Amino acid sequence: MIMAKKVKDFTEGERVEANLLISSAVRGTTNSGSPYLTLVLQDSSKAIDAKLWDVKPELEKQLEVGKVYDFDLEVIKYKNNLQAKVLRVLPVPQSEIDMEDFVFKSPVSKDALRSSIQEGINLIENTKIAQIVSAALNYYAADFYDYPAAAKIHHNFIGGLATHTSGMIRVAAALCSIYPSLNRDYLIAGVIIHDLGKIEELSSPVVTEYTKEGKLLGHISIMDARLLQIGKEIGVEDSEELLLLRHMVLSHHGQYEYGSPVRPETMEAEILNLIDNIDARINTIDKALSEVKEGEFTQKIFALDNRFFYKHK
Amino acid sequence: MIMAKKVKDFTEGERVEANLLISSAVRGTTNSGSPYLTLVLQDSSKAIDAKLWDVKPELEKQLEVGKVYDFDLEVIKYKNNLQAKVLRVLPVPQSEIDMEDFVFKSPVSKDALRSSIQEGINLIENTKIAQIVSAALNYYAADFYDYPAAAKIHHNFIGGLATHTSGMIRVAAALCSIYPSLNRDYLIAGVIIHDLGKIEELSSPVVTEYTKEGKLLGHISIMDARLLQIGKEIGVEDSEELLLLRHMVLSHHGQYEYGSPVRPETMEAEILNLIDNIDARINTIDKALSEVKEGEFTQKIFALDNRFFYKHK
Amino acid sequence: MIMAKKVKDFTEGERVEANLLISSAVRGTTNSGSPYLTLVLQDSSKAIDAKLWDVKPELEKQLEVGKVYDFDLEVIKYKNNLQAKVLRVLPVPQSEIDMEDFVFKSPVSKDALRSSIQEGINLIENTKIAQIVSAALNYYAADFYDYPAAAKIHHNFIGGLATHTSGMIRVAAALCSIYPSLNRDYLIAGVIIHDLGKIEELSSPVVTEYTKEGKLLGHISIMDARLLQIGKEIGVEDSEELLLLRHMVLSHHGQYEYGSPVRPETMEAEILNLIDNIDARINTIDKALSEVKEGEFTQKIFALDNRFFYKHK
Amino acid sequence: MIMAKKVKDFTEGERVEANLLISSAVRGTTNSGSPYLTLVLQDSSKAIDAKLWDVKPELEKQLEVGKVYDFDLEVIKYKNNLQAKVLRVLPVPQSEIDMEDFVFKSPVSKDALRSSIQEGINLIENTKIAQIVSAALNYYAADFYDYPAAAKIHHNFIGGLATHTSGMIRVAAALCSIYPSLNRDYLIAGVIIHDLGKIEELSSPVVTEYTKEGKLLGHISIMDARLLQIGKEIGVEDSEELLLLRHMVLSHHGQYEYGSPVRPETMEAEILNLIDNIDARINTIDKALSEVKEGEFTQKIFALDNRFFYKHK
Amino acid sequence: MIMAKKVKDFTEGERVEANLLISSAVRGTTNSGSPYLTLVLQDSSKAIDAKLWDVKPELEKQLEVGKVYDFDLEVIKYKNNLQAKVLRVLPVPQSEIDMEDFVFKSPVSKDALRSSIQEGINLIENTKIAQIVSAALNYYAADFYDYPAAAKIHHNFIGGLATHTSGMIRVAAALCSIYPSLNRDYLIAGVIIHDLGKIEELSSPVVTEYTKEGKLLGHISIMDARLLQIGKEIGVEDSEELLLLRHMVLSHHGQYEYGSPVRPETMEAEILNLIDNIDARINTIDKALSEVKEGEFTQKIFALDNRFFYKHK
Amino acid sequence: MIMAKKVKDFTEGERVEANLLISSAVRGTTNSGSPYLTLVLQDSSKAIDAKLWDVKPELEKQLEVGKVYDFDLEVIKYKNNLQAKVLRVLPVPQSEIDMEDFVFKSPVSKDALRSSIQEGINLIENTKIAQIVSAALNYYAADFYDYPAAAKIHHNFIGGLATHTSGMIRVAAALCSIYPSLNRDYLIAGVIIHDLGKIEELSSPVVTEYTKEGKLLGHISIMDARLLQIGKEIGVEDSEELLLLRHMVLSHHGQYEYGSPVRPETMEAEILNLIDNIDARINTIDKALSEVKEGEFTQKIFALDNRFFYKHK
Repeated sequence: MIMAKKVKDFTEGERVEANLLISSAVRGTTNSGSPYLTLVLQDSSKAIDAKLWDVKPELEKQLEVGKVYDFDLEVIKYKNNLQAKVLRVLPVPQSEIDMEDFVFKSPVSKDALRSSIQEGINLIENTKIAQIVSAALNYYAADFYDYPAAAKIHHNFIGGLATHTSGMIRVAAALCSIYPSLNRDYLIAGVIIHDLGKIEELSSPVVTEYTKEGKLLGHISIMDARLLQIGKEIGVEDSEELLLLRHMVLSHHGQYEYGSPVRPETMEAEILNLIDNIDARINTIDKALSEVKEGEFTQKIFALDNRFFYKHK
Repeated sequence: MIMAKKVKDFTEGERVEANLLISSAVRGTTNSGSPYLTLVLQDSSKAIDAKLWDVKPELEKQLEVGKVYDFDLEVIKYKNNLQAKVLRVLPVPQSEIDMEDFVFKSPVSKDALRSSIQEGINLIENTKIAQIVSAALNYYAADFYDYPAAAKIHHNFIGGLATHTSGMIRVAAALCSIYPSLNRDYLIAGVIIHDLGKIEELSSPVVTEYTKEGKLLGHISIMDARLLQIGKEIGVEDSEELLLLRHMVLSHHGQYEYGSPVRPETMEAEILNLIDNIDARINTIDKALSEVKEGEFTQKIFALDNRFFYKHK
Repeated sequence: MIMAKKVKDFTEGERVEANLLISSAVRGTTNSGSPYLTLVLQDSSKAIDAKLWDVKPELEKQLEVGKVYDFDLEVIKYKNNLQAKVLRVLPVPQSEIDMEDFVFKSPVSKDALRSSIQEGINLIENTKIAQIVSAALNYYAADFYDYPAAAKIHHNFIGGLATHTSGMIRVAAALCSIYPSLNRDYLIAGVIIHDLGKIEELSSPVVTEYTKEGKLLGHISIMDARLLQIGKEIGVEDSEELLLLRHMVLSHHGQYEYGSPVRPETMEAEILNLIDNIDARINTIDKALSEVKEGEFTQKIFALDNRFFYKHK
Repeated sequence: MIMAKKVKDFTEGERVEANLLISSAVRGTTNSGSPYLTLVLQDSSKAIDAKLWDVKPELEKQLEVGKVYDFDLEVIKYKNNLQAKVLRVLPVPQSEIDMEDFVFKSPVSKDALRSSIQEGINLIENTKIAQIVSAALNYYAADFYDYPAAAKIHHNFIGGLATHTSGMIRVAAALCSIYPSLNRDYLIAGVIIHDLGKIEELSSPVVTEYTKEGKLLGHISIMDARLLQIGKEIGVEDSEELLLLRHMVLSHHGQYEYGSPVRPETMEAEILNLIDNIDARINTIDKALSEVKEGEFTQKIFALDNRFFYKHK
Repeated sequence: MIMAKKVKDFTEGERVEANLLISSAVRGTTNSGSPYLTLVLQDSSKAIDAKLWDVKPELEKQLEVGKVYDFDLEVIKYKNNLQAKVLRVLPVPQSEIDMEDFVFKSPVSKDALRSSIQEGINLIENTKIAQIVSAALNYYAADFYDYPAAAKIHHNFIGGLATHTSGMIRVAAALCSIYPSLNRDYLIAGVIIHDLGKIEELSSPVVTEYTKEGKLLGHISIMDARLLQIGKEIGVEDSEELLLLRHMVLSHHGQYEYGSPVRPETMEAEILNLIDNIDARINTIDKALSEVKEGEFTQKIFALDNRFFYKHK
Repeated sequence: MIMAKKVKDFTEGERVEANLLISSAVRGTTNSGSPYLTLVLQDSSKAIDAKLWDVKPELEKQLEVGKVYDFDLEVIKYKNNLQAKVLRVLPVPQSEIDMEDFVFKSPVSKDALRSSIQEGINLIENTKIAQIVSAALNYYAADFYDYPAAAKIHHNFIGGLATHTSGMIRVAAALCSIYPSLNRDYLIAGVIIHDLGKIEELSSPVVTEYTKEGKLLGHISIMDARLLQIGKEIGVEDSEELLLLRHMVLSHHGQYEYGSPVRPETMEAEILNLIDNIDARINTIDKALSEVKEGEFTQKIFALDNRFFYKHK
């Protein structure tokens, strides 16, 4: 008897039938010349690598990245991870599908994220800064609450960008309470706009690849130029406020070799970079630690210079 | 008529008589062969460079670093900074001197610092961790509230180390509220002990130079070995708690090239390094910004890779 | 009898009277406390360092950077370079002054530069590219033929930016003849716009310091954002042409550590960086070699990694 | 019916019979222990990877790198590239083979290359420089027009070295017309001799591996020492001309980490390095762009720091 | 007929039956989903990689790393190295096994190593230094003559640590004869204790993995702290001798990026680092050269920056 | 009464008359425009900086670097070092001067050095290697025993090169006794020839500046090319022995960034680099330690990455 279950509940050796989204598909050929597909299949609980051996051209043509199909799978273990062997795949009427069931989502609801970001905006007292931030959020309104914060590394789920922003707002507000010399207007504003350019850098909330603009300009320059345009439209082109917000966007990676063309030269730009690191790294390490038991080390984490992390008892 | 005033109130061109502490004295010789002293003179408000030209050997012998004298000065401007020319210097009965009036102090009172550190300790629930932290603070009890946090760069005043620690405790506690996956026991404990080795690395609270141990071992290894000794004394030598606290001390500079022999490999070690940076850099940048007007850039700050910082309007 | 002569003809030991522009003035104080000025004085032939000892406050207030005065000088040698000692300085009616006589100028006339740049534009066949380039040049029309190409390093004279651009156009055109796979439209366009942001980065054609925008954004990001604005105004905001020109501006320093947020990813962007190096380095080395005799080495050149260069016989 | 066609015309899925040169052969063993050969097969149009599964020892012994055989192949797709599966391989009388049909050749004819190099030599007016260049070319006369310019990266075909040299001569001559301060004699001479050491560094024009001398000395030092020997033979051992040409050879990689023991210290040495980069990179990028369609990015190019390049529309 | 022979005598193509130790076992799954084991099998002569295809769960459970089994093998060649295919594996009564026959051992006998180390100790004249060294050796007495000097790179055999130490003692003694300014007491002592921390860093003499302490503290800090504890126990906690020995341990990797938190600041610490390199690299290169013939190059050696080495004729 | 004494015996405050060699002279001008000379004066015991204020043109013309004069001096202290103020300077008949009394010399006699080097040569058994080494030493016979090993850093005295070579021979011989896998012929030969190129790189044994060849080629390439020439002359041009010796010379700085165009790829080349470091660093640190008392740190040593060294009690 074949079971229907969520990916996070798959165990080695079992046979499963499930509706799953194809989030990636790469064609390969075995040493002996027969074609196969390496797929990433997912529901809202988790993703799993899968192999479809000896794929026929007519089947290959039917399969589309970003669509949901009915899979019959055998779950095996490959290099310490579970992997699925596709035994059969059938179409599913897309009308019957609720995409919400097949994408990763923020642990925070969209409404809560909206409230959190709005609270951040409400903290900004300087009128020009508030106007720039609102105009920038409006510009990206259609996508801001859907996009991930990165293609792979951290907060890589629907709503990841807003979740990352929301976490950073809380840290920024806390630091402003502790250190009175921090200017809250600039810090909160910088947090909200610093990664908006990712909405143009990445292709879509679900299947996230780099766009042509992303590769040739990068999200830092995309957002910097967008800010000048927005500033011009709302009449603050020559204000110090716009200048300093552009500086925060440009410098928020902290170092030249991480793609910032200038290094932080205001107190708030310096702290923005550190807050960004705190929120991104906690999310990255959390994810890695969740895969191991207490008393063990994680796999090496590429995004953190190939360090492994220990999960204390 | 000669005025008596605080160093922070000195202005170009005036003549001043004041009791001042000599905190540094270096002998020089002019091109034409006559000896002079380059002094740093200070009261609790500020320090000023001074020149004592054509110094006689008998006078030179009487002057001691760390002592207070009665100076008659002319204030001039040299390379954009005020400088004093010593016209006359007389001894002052040291019994009449209250050293409190001549050293820089934390903006926070010693009592407030004690409360703040104690609040941090109270947050630690794990018994072994709490014991280790208390034993370590006891070991350095005589000096902890007097030492600076660094010889020159940040929090370089009486009580600087405790002030730095106190600021970091507040940030650590705030982050633990925002990110539930952070272990508060380890993070707070790591904050309190991370720089205790500086008490052995630096020579004294007032005239801070590197000790022989500081140069040959460094505060990181000094504290790491001290923790093993303390752990042995209180019977937790082989506990995971001691191991992870030693790891936090060893890795808190984050990078090999900053003197950490291992890189952070626990979530809390990673965040400790970022909190350290936040508190130290805010203090460093604050100090630099306090020297310039709004709309101006600071001098290049050596400790921040020679960046200058802009003071917004 | 005091001679009137050009700075380039000054010789050690002589006394000279001359009208000269003050292009820099820094106040100093001698070891013994007396104030003096370190000046840079120039006419169109050359600049010379000068000292005005024991300067009186009332004289100091009269002297302005960017203005011309009548100087009585003694020429001495200081560390292998000529230096002037100011014996007397008198005001000159600015109305009698033709500023042309006191600034460095391109060896090429402004008319020749205009023709050369126009020839470059004429080579561009793609209409959108031509429109973008023309609009960008128009935006900076008031200053393009006056600005230097750098504050200090290369082409640091009136018209330096246009001279640098003109040299690069000639190289670009030659390379396009040799390598048919190079796209001439993009290469010539990239050459013309690559450094326009310097007009906002530097303060003025004569006394060139970094502006606040220059320090906080840098000429690369200034120009990138300006291109988006210009593209929007002429209706090519979403064209591939605008995207690739922005990419060329962003990547033209070639490496992250030289301030480019992206590295060259088109053939023409890659070659633009090399042409920029050729023209800038030839100008830099030419200038250094002109100061030494055949068979000698130049001083170390800071902008070329402190290398010295040999002048062959 | 089996087709005979050129490698560049192979398409996925077809069966082909063709005479092909084996330019590389590496033995492998499948996971299950059976031996196979990974071959590179080529004719003058292109090379293709091929697998010979389950190779028998007696067949393996008959196959020689650098020889031509009659292959029966099936063309498949493997990781986005075409690959051939060897179905049968038969000997071909080498006497029937014209090797010209099986090697990559310069797009420029050998005669055109000879003319181009000779034109370069004719531009040199200084007698000693001309003598050194001619003697060096004579020394390598047997191989200069056959060798590639690199084992893999750029101009890796018969005549590649002369093609690279010829391209650089044209650029050098153009730059000398634009910049009169460049010494044409040195620049042209440097271009012609800079890579001659590769003829000793690489094993042969067709199957290019590093020789023992190539690995232990490198082409830069090979050529530098050869120049001293040549200079001695023609009696210019102590001339400045020989010294400066040796300097150009030694410094032409520009940086220590690229294998130059000295950095460029003459104007012409500096420019030689940039011309070398221009010609090599245009060839490298051209080759990569030729594999993709307009509007696409190339694969990452290892020799250009793993950058990918965009082919504009 | 199946042969019984030592691993170093295995040749391609033969069938062998032999008792062998499993020193590593990693589970894999073929592309088509069937499980297999990648084993490292060894006797005292050499190790060989082996594959056990299609391993049954019940067999897999019986096999233990660190135990000896009776193997029936087929020897094949895989990527230029011999590899074994496991045809059958049977248990062997461990009581019949002499583990000495299955582990790599130092070419020097344990007795000879003991004498050599003792001779080193005898050279130390300073009483405190001699006491510290003896106490440290006593602390690790149970393991010192068994542990390897590294998990993989050099002296990776039973007794490797003592062999490495012994070689270094001989070099240190020779240098002290040549250079009278070297202090023999410190240099010999530093040699003996420098790597003792590896006994806590690595898990066991045979199956050497990094312990939790090894990963989180590293052998340098482990030994440094251990020295303070030992110094305290024998009453030399505050001696200069203990301080300088701790400095030698901390600095013996020479550079921050190799894990030393301080760089060498005594003559003997500087030379200790160089002696360590000499002995380790000779061992590493010897091993690599032993695998190739005269006139050939070795494989790239990872531990020596991926250099290959030439074996002269 | 004026004393005549050796420079090493000068003390602060005294007046001295002495014959001294001028080893360096640089002209300066005081702030107020009067010319002076900064001299380095020396006898065989030590060198001292000196100032000749208000120097007259006619006196300046008489003074020559490399010549001895009769000086009347006042000894003062300047920045922690002794300095001499020249009160009067008179010519001395050079015929009365024995230059031996005015230059630094090796602590080892020239005869002892000759014996030591000869012993090294005698250790070489391979005929070709012995011939190459002898021919190379003959080529530089006139200077080998006079030259220093470096302009400033280590062994910077008459005979320094031979002293450095002699020390390295002893270390090489000792290592060959300890490690039988080291080839003594290559190692000793490499030691003897590795720095011979310095004789062409530096201008003279006494006044050591870089020659034009030294700057443009460097001693590594100078010697490499010289070896090919020598090898050709004695008929071993194509021998493996010459190839490997050239490799040792080319690679003996160990790293690209230290000027080696190839990294060591033979066992002996690798060890040569380490022996070179041992001998050079012991000499460098010895010199620095000789300037301080026990229990003190030296000044920062530029050639050792600005480290200071501690002199133990």
